[in-house]
Formats: sequence, structure tokens, C-alpha cells
Amino acid sequence: MIEPERGFPEVEYRSRVENAQSLMAREGLDALLLNTEPDVRYFSGFLTRFWESPTRPWFLVLPQSGLPIAVIPKIGAALMAKTWIADIRSWQAPDPVDDGVTLLAETLSETLGGAGRVGVPMGQGTCLRMPLRDWHALKARLPRIRFDDDSDIVKRLRMVKSEREIAKIRNACAIADRAFARVPDFACSGTPLDRVFRRFQAVCLEEGADWVPYLAGGAGQGGYDDVISPATSAPLKAGDVLMLDTGLVHDGYFCDFDRNFSVGRPDDGTRAAHERLVDAVAAASEIARPGTIAADLFHAMDRVLSGGAGGADAGRLGHGLGMQLTEGLSLIPEDDTVLETGMVLTLEPGLDRPGGRIMVHEENIAIRDGAPAFLSRRASRDITVLDG
Amino acid sequence: MIEPERGFPEVEYRSRVENAQSLMAREGLDALLLNTEPDVRYFSGFLTRFWESPTRPWFLVLPQSGLPIAVIPKIGAALMAKTWIADIRSWQAPDPVDDGVTLLAETLSETLGGAGRVGVPMGQGTCLRMPLRDWHALKARLPRIRFDDDSDIVKRLRMVKSEREIAKIRNACAIADRAFARVPDFACSGTPLDRVFRRFQAVCLEEGADWVPYLAGGAGQGGYDDVISPATSAPLKAGDVLMLDTGLVHDGYFCDFDRNFSVGRPDDGTRAAHERLVDAVAAASEIARPGTIAADLFHAMDRVLSGGAGGADAGRLGHGLGMQLTEGLSLIPEDDTVLETGMVLTLEPGLDRPGGRIMVHEENIAIRDGAPAFLSRRASRDITVLDG
Repeated sequence: MIEPERGFPEVEYRSRVENAQSLMAREGLDALLLNTEPDVRYFSGFLTRFWESPTRPWFLVLPQSGLPIAVIPKIGAALMAKTWIADIRSWQAPDPVDDGVTLLAETLSETLGGAGRVGVPMGQGTCLRMPLRDWHALKARLPRIRFDDDSDIVKRLRMVKSEREIAKIRNACAIADRAFARVPDFACSGTPLDRVFRRFQAVCLEEGADWVPYLAGGAGQGGYDDVISPATSAPLKAGDVLMLDTGLVHDGYFCDFDRNFSVGRPDDGTRAAHERLVDAVAAASEIARPGTIAADLFHAMDRVLSGGAGGADAGRLGHGLGMQLTEGLSLIPEDDTVLETGMVLTLEPGLDRPGGRIMVHEENIAIRDGAPAFLSRRASRDITVLDG
Repeated sequence: MIEPERGFPEVEYRSRVENAQSLMAREGLDALLLNTEPDVRYFSGFLTRFWESPTRPWFLVLPQSGLPIAVIPKIGAALMAKTWIADIRSWQAPDPVDDGVTLLAETLSETLGGAGRVGVPMGQGTCLRMPLRDWHALKARLPRIRFDDDSDIVKRLRMVKSEREIAKIRNACAIADRAFARVPDFACSGTPLDRVFRRFQAVCLEEGADWVPYLAGGAGQGGYDDVISPATSAPLKAGDVLMLDTGLVHDGYFCDFDRNFSVGRPDDGTRAAHERLVDAVAAASEIARPGTIAADLFHAMDRVLSGGAGGADAGRLGHGLGMQLTEGLSLIPEDDTVLETGMVLTLEPGLDRPGGRIMVHEENIAIRDGAPAFLSRRASRDITVLDG
């Protein structure tokens, strides 16, 4: 197993900060206030699973000029000191009376010289990872500072990956590829679905995943009921289509793709459905170029899925990918984001099957100057057979 | 491996709703608006790993009388329909123009007859899992509805577990116990730490975990640098103390405890440090009874850790546990929460070791009428030796 180098050189973070600062200047923002795991990590390199604990808030202040300032619980100060961030201010958290609010208010006030405009990511896919009570208290403490939407600055920056980032996503995909290749070793007619889920996650770890934040899937005759339910203990049986969809992580970057397996020989309908899904991915990848609109990828897939007519009630057929399982753009008719070199996407077509069932398929690609690069090992049109 | 029954009977959810409604009446709240994974799941039973995707917001409206209403993305409607929730309203998400705001506003308006007070969890440990932009839009749409802090209603309810919940946490603990017992099989002098991390997670899955959202740890001579860093590839060596701290999940409930291992025979200092940590847990568990204050558990441990004097700068020495890795109360001097039968806590003392290193230890207990029940298999005072 080849272990790529972990982390990024400082130049990567400096370039992210500079790009953000240019956009901040254009939008008239004096600072950005970041408080979610990926946003803090994007500019600092602070990587820990400790965010699983919701108790403590974490902040990064990115001034319009100068270097980022971390305002964080003391428990994270030693790890933050290993990143390139030099200005680290910490408090003993949790503090039920003042959980970093004063320290953050002072930092913002100092950074802005008392007044100005602070951008906070407020758009789709964001959340406020601090208590609303503290958010209100912060704003009340700083009446001369306005907290505005960041105009999607952080989202826009994160959507276009550096080559170093793409290499990390490619590596996560390669780990999942190896894990998917081993599914026939442990899943067959009679294997309970929850055992398949457990074993698959263990295999992802064996193949090099740091952890497996996401696994979904399903199994049923000719398709599955939905793609978000936890596994039951129902055993696989002949005629089932098994689908596993994983978002595993290596060095802080996700893959997100799935594979379908036929338990026993597939009938013609299942075989054709799988071919159509793979063809839909091909149709999207053929037009996935810089300058193409996100919605065009949706329509390219939708046309194949609906047999040429288009207009299927399909939901989202893909999305951006990187530091989060899903991020950035959406492949939906309403998303007019223009593709750029360096964007990493999932192509995720789905179709209806008899009996209210569905089948989905997913690949990960990076937008390049010419044809996109497949980061996942492209699936064959022939569905893989278990118990062949 | 014994698999306990999954889920809860409907009576469990009805009782949670009724308890919330009594508190809402007392606080003058006409509804609760919930939008985080554990809060939505607590009242609905909606269990999925799909929350890993930050794209879509999810809502549960709990009226002061009557049944909860789910306002959720269409992709979750089929799974929600398998819960006891009958009123499910969904929209095609993500929608860049109106991502559920109108549907949620209409639902709240209908529920409250146009005006009233809605409680939203805003206190420590909470977050707003929807975009701030949509939060502002929601409030603007409903000028006659006031969104106030929920007075920690949800936090208070979730802190006291039912017997069914405690059984689930106990089961998660038992899975981790079995995994910890296998550490000597795969960790010894020379094993890279990141391989230990991967293998341990795989073993947790083999022993029955549904997934392993959290693993932290460290290794170093006589202790470790911190408890939140990711693993490096540095091999274990004689004199190291290895610590693994896991929050694994079974059926939506966490355990959260750790174990220390000495690589080779421990020196006297390491041996004594481990004994002191175990003694600190014992001191806290001896007074962990209904009526005791959370802060008292802190002081009981702190006295042992500081050799009787107290006053060590120790940070948090434990916390509540259940549907999240950390939730509810904190064992800190400032937390005056009164313990009640049914609360589930971690006892998590830590102490300084030479060279700037630390050692920590953690057990999980349930508060009972008499002595607390240890949910984790209580560690021996003797640190476990690897390469014995």
C-alpha cells in the first residue's frame, strides 16, 4: 500500500488565503469568520476527528490583509501549533458563561480596528457551528461590526481544487476501488446486509482509509428502496441488486462513489438498467469540460435515463466533492455554475425499477482542460455478479 | 455476537414528545423547531448516515399539543415514513431558490395559527444546521412568530436516558470492550500508530459496531502529546504508552471511553500514573448518585489527580453521552447540574507526565438509585502491557 505524503506545504495555504483576500477586497469584506470543520481546515490545515464532539466552538478569523488567527479551545492549541497558523488564541472550553465569545469579539474588533464588515458563509450547504445564543451575544458585543453573507467566497474557492487536493481525492478513490474489488470475497447469497456493511467498512480500512464517515446502500429484488437507510439483517438473495456507496477519507479528503452487484445472474431488466446508468455517466463525462454548465451535465444524464425525452423527476444527479462528502455545485436543472479546470464532481444518475425500487450509479471525475479525469476506476457496463 | 433489537417501540417516542410538551407548556413555547441529527432523531427515530452530507436541511416541528411534523427533503421521505411520524412534508432538495423555507414557514404558521413562540435549541453544544441565509429568510417570512431559546428543554430531556437507551449505550460499550481486549493481538513494538488506528476500527466493526465515527489516541514515551491529533506512521516503541479513545455507534447510540497500553514493561512512573487515573474514576463513581452535582465529580477526580490538594488546571473531566459522543453536562467546576437516575456520563480524568506529555483514562457510567452502573468494563489499576 503506497502512502502519499500527508498534509500540504505552507504555500498551498498561503495561496488559499491570498485568493480569499482578493475576493474579500472585491466584495468589500474586512474579514471572514469561519467556524465549520472544512472551512477552518481549508485555511489552516487543522485536521482532527475531535469535531465529532459538538461541545466546543472553533473559529478562524481571516483578515482582508495579513494572516489568519485561530480562536480555539485550549484542548486544540497544541495541534493547531503544528499547522502554519502562528496567531493562536485559546480559552478553557467549555465555559458555560463565556465560551470564547469575548475572545472572539476582541479578536474581531482588533482585526477590524473596531468597525467593518465580516463575511460569514451563509449559503446553501453551510451551517452555523456555534450556539445561536453565542452568535447573538457576539453580534451584540460588536455593534459597529456588520456580519454579512460571504457571497459564497469560501464555497467558490473550495470548489476549484489544486493538483495536490486532486491527488488526495484520487487516493481516496483508489482505496475505495480496492475495497469494492473485494466485495465478491465476502458478499453472496445468504450474507446479511448489515454484515456486508460492516465488512466493507473494515475492508476500506484495510485498504488504507483513515476512517469511513459514510456508507450507505441497499439490496432488493432488481433494485433497492432508497439509498439512505441503515442496513437491516436481511440476507442477500438471488435476484437482489446490492449497492454500496461510500465516502471514505484519507488525509481529510473524501471519495464518494458506489458500485452495484447482482446476487446471481442478473435478469435482462437489471442488466439493461446498469448499462443505462453507465451510459448516463458517459454522456455527462463527454461534455464535462471547462465552460460547460452544471445543469448541462444533469440534462445529459437525464436524457439517457429517460430514454431520450428528458424531464424525469430525478432529483440531484451529482455534486461537488472534496473536503466534504458533498460540497459546492449540484447537478440539477437550476444550477448554472460554470465548470472550471480543477473542479471535482460526482456523476450520480439514478433510475426507477419495477416495484417502486431504484438503481443508482456514481463515479468521481476531475474537470481538465480536455476530457475529464476519472478518479474512480470507471465501472464496466456489465454489472458485477456475486455467486457468479 | 448477540444483536439487540433495533429501534424503539412507539411508546418511547410518545413519552419523549409528552415530556417535551409539558416543559414547553411551562416555558410558554407553542412549538419546538429542531434541525440537528440527534434532535430530529430523538423525537422521530429517523436514523441515517445521510446527515454526513451538509447540502440539505432537515426539520422537525413539535407542537405544544399534537404530533410532530417532519419537513424534510424528498430523498428522506421514504425512510421517515418507516418511523412513527405520520405527517411528513417534503420538497425536492437542494433547491437553490427556496430550500424548504416556504414549506417550513407554512408548517409553522399553520401549527401556531399564525403567531406564537417557537423554541429553538440555542445553548451550549447546539448549532444551527441550516444556512443562516435561510434562517433569516424564515424569520422574515414569519413576523408574528418569535424564535426563542428553548430553555435547554431538549438538552435536559436527552440527558436523562430511558432504560432502553441505556441498554443501547451498554451494548456499544460492550462492543468497544471486546475490541480493546484484542489490541494486544495487533499492536506491539514496531507497529505504526496509523496501522493500529486502522486495525482497531476494523476490529470495532468486526465486534459489531455499525460504524466508528470517532477514534482518537496517541502514543509516546510515558504518555502522549495530546488526545485529538490524527495518527502518524511512527512505530510504537518500548516505553511508549499507547492510548485509544473510541466513540463507536450501535443503533444510533455511542460509547466513549479509552484504554491505555504500555509497550513493554511500564516504568514506575507510568504504572503509578495509570493507578492514579483509575483511582480518580473510583473516587468520582463513589459519589456519583442522584442529587450529586456535576462539579462534585470534577472535584473528586481533581483531588486524586493533584494528590489531594485539588486545583489542577485540568479542563473537562467528563461529560454526558448518548446519541452524541459528547452531550449534556460537563464535569467542570462551573457545572451545577444535579445528577439524576438515568443520566449516562463519562468519567475522564487526565494528568500531566514528564516531558509535556499527558495520560488520560475514561469509563462510562449510568447513574442509578444506588451505586452507578459501569457500562464499560472497568479497567484494572494495572496498565495492560503489550509485548508482555
